[in-house]
Amino acid sequence: MQIALAQLNYIIGDVEGNTSKIIGEIHKAKATKVDIVVFSELAICGYPPKDLLDYPSFIERCEVGLALICAETDGIAVIVGGPAWSNLQKGKKLYNSAFFCADKKLLRRIDKTLLPTYDIFDEYRYFQPNEVFECVEYKGERIAVTVCEDLWNLDDEKLYKVTPMDELIGQKPSVMINLSGSPYSYNHVEKRRTRMQLNAKTYGIPLFYVNQVGGNTDILFDGGSMFINRMGEIAEECEFYKEDFKVIKWDSSNIYEDNHQDYYDYDIGLIHDALVMGVRDYFAKVGFKKAVIGSSGGIDSAVVHAIAAEALGAENVKAITMPSKYSSMGSVDDAKKLAENLGSPFSNIAIKNVFDSFIDTLAEEFEGKNPNVTEENLQARSRGIILMAYSNKFGNMVLNTSNKSESAVGYSTLYGDMCGGLSVIGDLYKEQVYDLARFINRYGEVIPYEIITKEPSAELRPDQKDSDSLPPYPILDKILFHYIEGKKGWKEIVALQEEGLTEDLVRKIVRMVDRNEYKRFQASPTLRISHKAFGFGRRMPIVARYNN
Amino acid sequence: MQIALAQLNYIIGDVEGNTSKIIGEIHKAKATKVDIVVFSELAICGYPPKDLLDYPSFIERCEVGLALICAETDGIAVIVGGPAWSNLQKGKKLYNSAFFCADKKLLRRIDKTLLPTYDIFDEYRYFQPNEVFECVEYKGERIAVTVCEDLWNLDDEKLYKVTPMDELIGQKPSVMINLSGSPYSYNHVEKRRTRMQLNAKTYGIPLFYVNQVGGNTDILFDGGSMFINRMGEIAEECEFYKEDFKVIKWDSSNIYEDNHQDYYDYDIGLIHDALVMGVRDYFAKVGFKKAVIGSSGGIDSAVVHAIAAEALGAENVKAITMPSKYSSMGSVDDAKKLAENLGSPFSNIAIKNVFDSFIDTLAEEFEGKNPNVTEENLQARSRGIILMAYSNKFGNMVLNTSNKSESAVGYSTLYGDMCGGLSVIGDLYKEQVYDLARFINRYGEVIPYEIITKEPSAELRPDQKDSDSLPPYPILDKILFHYIEGKKGWKEIVALQEEGLTEDLVRKIVRMVDRNEYKRFQASPTLRISHKAFGFGRRMPIVARYNN
Repeated sequence: MQIALAQLNYIIGDVEGNTSKIIGEIHKAKATKVDIVVFSELAICGYPPKDLLDYPSFIERCEVGLALICAETDGIAVIVGGPAWSNLQKGKKLYNSAFFCADKKLLRRIDKTLLPTYDIFDEYRYFQPNEVFECVEYKGERIAVTVCEDLWNLDDEKLYKVTPMDELIGQKPSVMINLSGSPYSYNHVEKRRTRMQLNAKTYGIPLFYVNQVGGNTDILFDGGSMFINRMGEIAEECEFYKEDFKVIKWDSSNIYEDNHQDYYDYDIGLIHDALVMGVRDYFAKVGFKKAVIGSSGGIDSAVVHAIAAEALGAENVKAITMPSKYSSMGSVDDAKKLAENLGSPFSNIAIKNVFDSFIDTLAEEFEGKNPNVTEENLQARSRGIILMAYSNKFGNMVLNTSNKSESAVGYSTLYGDMCGGLSVIGDLYKEQVYDLARFINRYGEVIPYEIITKEPSAELRPDQKDSDSLPPYPILDKILFHYIEGKKGWKEIVALQEEGLTEDLVRKIVRMVDRNEYKRFQASPTLRISHKAFGFGRRMPIVARYNN
Repeated sequence: MQIALAQLNYIIGDVEGNTSKIIGEIHKAKATKVDIVVFSELAICGYPPKDLLDYPSFIERCEVGLALICAETDGIAVIVGGPAWSNLQKGKKLYNSAFFCADKKLLRRIDKTLLPTYDIFDEYRYFQPNEVFECVEYKGERIAVTVCEDLWNLDDEKLYKVTPMDELIGQKPSVMINLSGSPYSYNHVEKRRTRMQLNAKTYGIPLFYVNQVGGNTDILFDGGSMFINRMGEIAEECEFYKEDFKVIKWDSSNIYEDNHQDYYDYDIGLIHDALVMGVRDYFAKVGFKKAVIGSSGGIDSAVVHAIAAEALGAENVKAITMPSKYSSMGSVDDAKKLAENLGSPFSNIAIKNVFDSFIDTLAEEFEGKNPNVTEENLQARSRGIILMAYSNKFGNMVLNTSNKSESAVGYSTLYGDMCGGLSVIGDLYKEQVYDLARFINRYGEVIPYEIITKEPSAELRPDQKDSDSLPPYPILDKILFHYIEGKKGWKEIVALQEEGLTEDLVRKIVRMVDRNEYKRFQASPTLRISHKAFGFGRRMPIVARYNN
């Protein structure tokens, strides 16, 4: 039997486009005598469809898509994901389903049992969980079909009371097929492989696993679809961050050999690729070609510039440096050198006149008041406006250059440096930004070494350094990681007794994170590369009192 | 038996503060010989606590709060809501529980069965549903205690397979007690009353129903706790938008008499009160006293100004009008007259110099390009920056003045008129804003009549009118309502054959709504008064292709 893994990049909501794409792959599969071609979870509508599922007319369009797909299944079986009406008197109106079509008929609909509802996942918002377990018979094989999360309730991490494969294994299936929509976050690749291998080992049968690929705004799908043999070895693995189509010869009487190789040695390389795909797909799917970046000569904008250049082509990334009287000459030179290294268009637009004009305009109103953060923010906001004006005039999307450390503690200006249509490194702590800069320079200088070695500064007042207001980044990032990813309260963080993590400092930082929820609420979408990014996956109250 | 309804305004996360407040009411209840005092859902931690529930240390603090409350229950019973560890091997780690404490002991923990996971609700994200049903015996009465949604799965709208009261009624309880966290949206008051009355009628026993009150950022809780007798009549009802404490004498052998009166004749009055509470509570809970508003002389900023003046005191609301060369003289006069009518401080800060300075600064970069939306946005953003500078300098929070119609179609400028810490009327369609203006003027002119009668204009280019770019608001609002609240696709809206709703227009408007998801993503929190507000309750993909 030949089974094909069809790992595609879908556009959310574009039911007609996704359907044509799926049908194209079915034709390809037929041409290579495939018996079963498998697509990923909710492929017909794109994943995650979010509240589009609330529109009955949208579900109807998915039904039309399924009918068109089904009509193409003469002489081949297709397993594809999509939403289905539950037709229940009680309960949610929809299922998250895998449709098993063959010979132009819908042979069986398999509904998802375990509905992830945590972090970025919201599936219980839309779907009713399945309660019926039955394998599908096809060409002499008994197949246990499941959808994504259904294979994750194993081992010590049981988030659900039911484990679908425990229900199905009694029917003696010869193989498992799983349709997934499993997003990337660093370390998640290994976690996913291990968990899927554990399934094959636990139930003693092989597993065909199909994931989607592509960036959907903030959520990045990395692909890595695979065939795992009954010993739990990864025998085949699809490409990462690219569409792929792999045909696997499989016979339930044989044990397939392992020819798997690891993808990357360095995790930072995976992060790099994820960000490049995220930028490329966001622009492609929104219909933009060009970006514009405020290039300060600092590390953050440099890394974003390099990533954007790789994703969009350096000539499509306009860099604008906007010095004020507090900018060092070095900063302007470094920004310029970076643009030259990459080959991007570059402009120098001084903000002095605009800034002075704001000061003049507000002089009467501000009479007798001393300069404070107001004047710093005016600089950041003048820059934001100039970038947005450039964007409006030339159609380049502004890329935001904030990192996770500053976003966490609110070391950023709303409507100023927080401007932008997409935040590229907003889920990377400052230390990770440096790692990424070194990775970008792995074959030689792309980002000028001066940018990597100089001390971080916002340059909004004379001789300002980040370290005036913040602890050194290695200390700051450690506290933030314990608090955000680690979900530890300040007392628990102090109790770790790690170097530099004094009670005063930890409490101060944790409070800064809480107090700046209101700023992050208005931040741009942020490419997600950790398992706890700011944005859709972390929902903290804005008005609240805690961590006292 | 005397039962007290304790309707309080909690601060999310402030476990210690909420606990003291609860204990204070327990003392009050003891003084009036109350047998059982009832608090609302998740009162100890404040509702909705969102991802604070992910922090084990936070749950521990709630446990301490419960212990302190329990210690105060000598001679009285207390029913109070809070999170509880599930201690399950499989499943979610927490329950959403009602704790029944008496004589310094926890007599029983009742866990919530039905976990709303739709619109703004996310409870399946955190909680495991209850599966055990048992009444509580206290002082000779058998009491069916449930939590909020548990009483909503009645009649034709069954979102769940289980209905907790169907499970409990066989034990022959003499009374129902429900702990709620039920937010306001227009018409929801009637819906809630009707649903609760239906419970009393269906099961033939009275119901004590306790809701919380207060604004928690965008979500507004209106209170309206009540006692419903066994005939389904509302016999007592607590105040709306205020804390309240009502003691009800009740005897299971008697039928209580109805002395209920309707609260408001006009729905717009309820909306008005909701917004005033929302502004007041947001400021109080964040710790701000003063607001600043960009006062254009148009209807939107006028209504926001009037609401803010009522919530914070007119003297605490600074109005700044920022004319450009396209502003009519009438606009400045109207804005000034409004400030005089209300008694608010007022400034006129022309943006000409700032605007010219941007144009000069960008002249070289923009050479050979014609004026377009860039220059319009530059005006809106110059105003935004001036408001933010005022906010930074004087500590007034900027109130956003966008309405739902313009936010829906993207008739607004990111980082310009979309600035602000809180959107006051962002969930009101333009027609509702006019209704609200007339309501504000119900006793005489507060908002100058000129503002209500003149044609809406953004005044960003010569003789601009909203109707140049948009259909008349009554038509626009109708389409938006069908699409957003009604969840109808464009074909279904056209099929309604309502006057003015041509296919071309409906498709155009619906596409505008979709295309501007990216703007709304960066909007400020918006006071929610409809059952489908933009923000947390409506989660649409940004990158998507639909409604083709």
